Amino acid sequence: MDLVGDVLSGSRLALARLLTQIENESQAGLEALDKLFKHTGKAHLIGVTGAPGTGKSSLVNQLARHYRKDAPGQSPPRVAIVAVDPSSPFTGGAILGDRIRMRELSGDPGVFIRSMASRGALGGLAHTTAGVVQAFDAAGFDVIFIETVGAGQAEVDIARLAHTTLVVEAPGLGDDIQAIKAGILEIADILVINKADRPGVESTEQALKGMLQLAHPAPRIFHHHYQPMEINKPPVDKPEQEMWLPPIQRTVAVEGIGVSELIQAISNHQVYLDRTGEREHRDQIRLETELVHHLRSELMARWQTASAPGQYQQVLQQVVSRRISPHQAAETLLSGGEAA
Amino acid sequence: MDLVGDVLSGSRLALARLLTQIENESQAGLEALDKLFKHTGKAHLIGVTGAPGTGKSSLVNQLARHYRKDAPGQSPPRVAIVAVDPSSPFTGGAILGDRIRMRELSGDPGVFIRSMASRGALGGLAHTTAGVVQAFDAAGFDVIFIETVGAGQAEVDIARLAHTTLVVEAPGLGDDIQAIKAGILEIADILVINKADRPGVESTEQALKGMLQLAHPAPRIFHHHYQPMEINKPPVDKPEQEMWLPPIQRTVAVEGIGVSELIQAISNHQVYLDRTGEREHRDQIRLETELVHHLRSELMARWQTASAPGQYQQVLQQVVSRRISPHQAAETLLSGGEAA
Repeated sequence: MDLVGDVLSGSRLALARLLTQIENESQAGLEALDKLFKHTGKAHLIGVTGAPGTGKSSLVNQLARHYRKDAPGQSPPRVAIVAVDPSSPFTGGAILGDRIRMRELSGDPGVFIRSMASRGALGGLAHTTAGVVQAFDAAGFDVIFIETVGAGQAEVDIARLAHTTLVVEAPGLGDDIQAIKAGILEIADILVINKADRPGVESTEQALKGMLQLAHPAPRIFHHHYQPMEINKPPVDKPEQEMWLPPIQRTVAVEGIGVSELIQAISNHQVYLDRTGEREHRDQIRLETELVHHLRSELMARWQTASAPGQYQQVLQQVVSRRISPHQAAETLLSGGEAA
Repeated sequence: MDLVGDVLSGSRLALARLLTQIENESQAGLEALDKLFKHTGKAHLIGVTGAPGTGKSSLVNQLARHYRKDAPGQSPPRVAIVAVDPSSPFTGGAILGDRIRMRELSGDPGVFIRSMASRGALGGLAHTTAGVVQAFDAAGFDVIFIETVGAGQAEVDIARLAHTTLVVEAPGLGDDIQAIKAGILEIADILVINKADRPGVESTEQALKGMLQLAHPAPRIFHHHYQPMEINKPPVDKPEQEMWLPPIQRTVAVEGIGVSELIQAISNHQVYLDRTGEREHRDQIRLETELVHHLRSELMARWQTASAPGQYQQVLQQVVSRRISPHQAAETLLSGGEAA
């Protein structure tokens, strides 16, 4: 069976099979991605992250529906949703979310939803997510959402695989969340206050604005990156389209309020990415991350093949008994591996 | 200056300097850890994780104070707190937390607090945390808390570096949190419901009990690991001390309520770890993770030294222009690197 050909010609079954191969990190999946890779690079990747309780999934569902319905006078974009749940090794939450999604988006052949759980492999999840996104891209999906549940570093790293990253907040989620926001604000291209009909929305927006000024000291970044020679000029002189200030969009996803405006903001960001070369820059960073991941894996695999059997366990036991440090053990193994 | 000797003889200044070297992943830090490693393996490592808003930091502070004050008729244990904030690249939250901690625990030479932020390096944070913990262990700290802010996979992976992992919950944190609990419950040795004076504590406890039964099907795990031949015997026949059922402890950390009981539960878990060999097992997993990290880094460093200059950028450009996939690029580079 020609899985690659079937994926390229639009078979959902073939795509689903390929995604499973990618998730299992099988050789077949790797080879299929090699063949599909030249067909990638067309989709717009939208990362969506934020703390639990902000209603990210509902928001992504609504965005998907709007993309499918609002396309004026043209065929609507095909939409994929990759829902990544790094904190759920046994996918309970993801499965529940899937059912709700299936009900809301089912029957639309232009939408494909894939949930991914971690199975305990941390670095691996960002890697397999990148593979899944490439498969959707090659299969002709125009808009690909990468939604992460949770707001830890792993989730942030996965969401920033995207061209446009939405950071979702909601009013009244408690004090501690302030601390987390500071970190993820840095990666936000667009800030969304979902559940904006709740009390406290004004103070949430004020807080976000305040933190945005800390995280994005816009005039300085602007000067530094684009006009290093004019560093003393006041920021008011700069043409505003040369820099991106993350807008704050209010939505009530479950009622569809603010979703069209959010799509407009995403579209504005797309235009900005293309005009400034930032899209290429982000692509390059993402692909280099992938390359380094493969390099590391392949180096490790080659070493394992070449190393003397039993030596690894023997050296590990010396570490466990505290005779040599893990670092010294690695040095020992690599000397031995080269000699063997 | 003999940094290693000074650390071993109890100098706080030398320790602080060493911790910075470890965080910067400097060669000096690596060499110092090699020398210190044989002095490790004595401390009890306590991981503390949970969603934002559960009051983890206050709880850890209270635990530290109790360990320092409650030691009956002996010299109190020395306590280190490693507060890891993977979601805060610029440490704003961590610094704020530090100030509060300094006020509460300052002046006690038996307590050492170190905050670590991610600086964007994901896998690296778990690694440098392991190094920092080893330094505290070698320096003679008896109890080392590894506290992570946030509840994503990275945080969970760091917290499980410990011998005893506390998962902290609090009543009334919203619906979405249920989904996250499912994943991190699996790593909990002790469940803590902090802020237990809040309304909703009963339903939180009931929910946790229900999920514990899903996450820890105790009789089956018990049979499988320890008595494979008696798989058909009813669980009631088993001596209870052979297995560990995560207890649920209620605390109100800011008032010190339930903290002594929590310390007793930690002590019970220590006894269990020692009796069953589980402590050695966990040490071995942790040290093997470290070893593999060093192996990977060293393989990559050796390859970089051996590879032809300029080739990497050239191959990366072929990936960016979609001529070859990241996987094919890695293969190309490794063939070239070996030929060179």
